[in-house]
Amino acid sequence: MTPNLVAGLEPPYYTAVFTSIRPEAPEGYAETGARMQEIVSGLPGFLGYESARTPGGIAISVAYFRDLPSLDAWRDNAEHQAAKRRGREEWYESYSLHIGKVERSYGFER
Amino acid sequence: MTPNLVAGLEPPYYTAVFTSIRPEAPEGYAETGARMQEIVSGLPGFLGYESARTPGGIAISVAYFRDLPSLDAWRDNAEHQAAKRRGREEWYESYSLHIGKVERSYGFER
Repeated sequence: MTPNLVAGLEPPYYTAVFTSIRPEAPEGYAETGARMQEIVSGLPGFLGYESARTPGGIAISVAYFRDLPSLDAWRDNAEHQAAKRRGREEWYESYSLHIGKVERSYGFER
Repeated sequence: MTPNLVAGLEPPYYTAVFTSIRPEAPEGYAETGARMQEIVSGLPGFLGYESARTPGGIAISVAYFRDLPSLDAWRDNAEHQAAKRRGREEWYESYSLHIGKVERSYGFER
């Protein structure tokens, strides 16, 4: 599977940058992640998602949203809230979330 | 080496989210990256840096800055500009850069 970047978005839009430290593959993590991706992909205003993890290092994921109401709808989704609780109780050593409003973006493709 | 998250930043601040697709370890990439980290760490307003790459997948790095002038100083740095040129000519298949102003952030630590 060739990975694809989220590209060509027209500002303004929002980035939700989630950085975390967690074990490689904790129980239930992959299934929950797949379900979360399914839910967020169906939300109005969701523009895309990317994720990377260095083995033994940190994980960074970025979700792109058109506006704050769509971001808030994702934050308030009940299944998402349950997953976040489980994440804090079982999966993550630590995480940070940074919500940014993007006014400038650039892209390059060979 | 235990990785550390950039955490505890007080909004407002800026995130420069750089996502890319590139070969594992192209020639000159690691040395240039180390030099870039040295330069950016010395700039006023630089708050931190994180990076992750899934083997065979995408890379995401996030640099945190206090304000737009500090971000612009980094963009305009001559060595950084030369590195970006080389990146486009030699290293990257594609990349995107998203500059966001962060008004909200959250953290969790076990």
